[in-house]
Amino acid sequence: MKLHEYSRSSASYRTRIALNLKGVSYETLQVSLIAREQFSPAYLAINPQARVPSLVLDDGTTLIQSPAILEWLEEIYPEPPLLPREPLARARVRGMAALIGCDIHPLNNLAPLNYLRDTLGAGEDAVRAWYAHWITLGFTALEQMVSGPYCAGEALSMADVYLVPQVANARRYSVGLAAFPKIVAIEAMCLAHPAVAAAAPR
Amino acid sequence: MKLHEYSRSSASYRTRIALNLKGVSYETLQVSLIAREQFSPAYLAINPQARVPSLVLDDGTTLIQSPAILEWLEEIYPEPPLLPREPLARARVRGMAALIGCDIHPLNNLAPLNYLRDTLGAGEDAVRAWYAHWITLGFTALEQMVSGPYCAGEALSMADVYLVPQVANARRYSVGLAAFPKIVAIEAMCLAHPAVAAAAPR
Repeated sequence: MKLHEYSRSSASYRTRIALNLKGVSYETLQVSLIAREQFSPAYLAINPQARVPSLVLDDGTTLIQSPAILEWLEEIYPEPPLLPREPLARARVRGMAALIGCDIHPLNNLAPLNYLRDTLGAGEDAVRAWYAHWITLGFTALEQMVSGPYCAGEALSMADVYLVPQVANARRYSVGLAAFPKIVAIEAMCLAHPAVAAAAPR
Repeated sequence: MKLHEYSRSSASYRTRIALNLKGVSYETLQVSLIAREQFSPAYLAINPQARVPSLVLDDGTTLIQSPAILEWLEEIYPEPPLLPREPLARARVRGMAALIGCDIHPLNNLAPLNYLRDTLGAGEDAVRAWYAHWITLGFTALEQMVSGPYCAGEALSMADVYLVPQVANARRYSVGLAAFPKIVAIEAMCLAHPAVAAAAPR
């Protein structure tokens, strides 16, 4: 299968982590968001939303939206599991994943940052403050929800797959993490896993 | 079970739709986001993220984040299904749901709108333009992805559960829908279903 992605995009990063953890072999094809390659007719034919990632299977079927791709991977490649078996435990993992995937990451995506700059005339300091605000707000809640050593306890889960790229984004924007010792310790646990480490942006 | 929610919140609305479609009986408890009741110590003890909805089961277990609640409902109350059986078809439904739940709705939540007003000094026209921008961008892609008569074809699915509240938000903010005839037709199909109609904000 082929993963159309952008190395630094955190939705792409989380998809690479999941693919690596599942031991699936895949080829990556870069779509430079900076060069606006996501708006090329060739890419729009793959993904009408002009976002990354898109996962194209060998028969040509295309999957878009990383939350949907991750659930599909879990269904098709159940080992090692990224969700527990018990429904309430699954809901807890998915709740932490959605906190990151819905309430932090979308606000810090390239599209809203560009809108703040280009349409609302926000300066770079205001953009960075916005970026930090959503991470700090989300991580303040998440810090109370995680168990350790991984987000949901002893097993690496889908919540960790979302967490690692989000912490990487925080570091890239120099967002203070001192108030989130559990999150930082979980990130270190995850990065010690070769499959997670191999997914890091280049 | 008890659903702590705010009638107009679209994450609450989608949860009510799913509960109604599954025929689950539940009590609603209003958390007024306008009166900032989500920040009360009593509510923070239920949901450290200070967001709605929260679903509290009879044994006191709390589920947060509507995407996680919807997946849990699908696992516990499989009939009628909100996801198809076949994994690729499930990924297609979840992809449409995530397009709305990750790339439209989070940007138009109360928290970012307040940030635009209070911290970035955006006027009401600028806030309304921001609101319309994310709906128009997302619906432009979604219009190409939906099948009809429902989002994923003949059966009402999780994608429709996300669509109905998002179209309601568009209408509330007078966002033009003329370019999205398939989406508007799907909304009408969904609203004709008594379980969906019964979930409407009061």
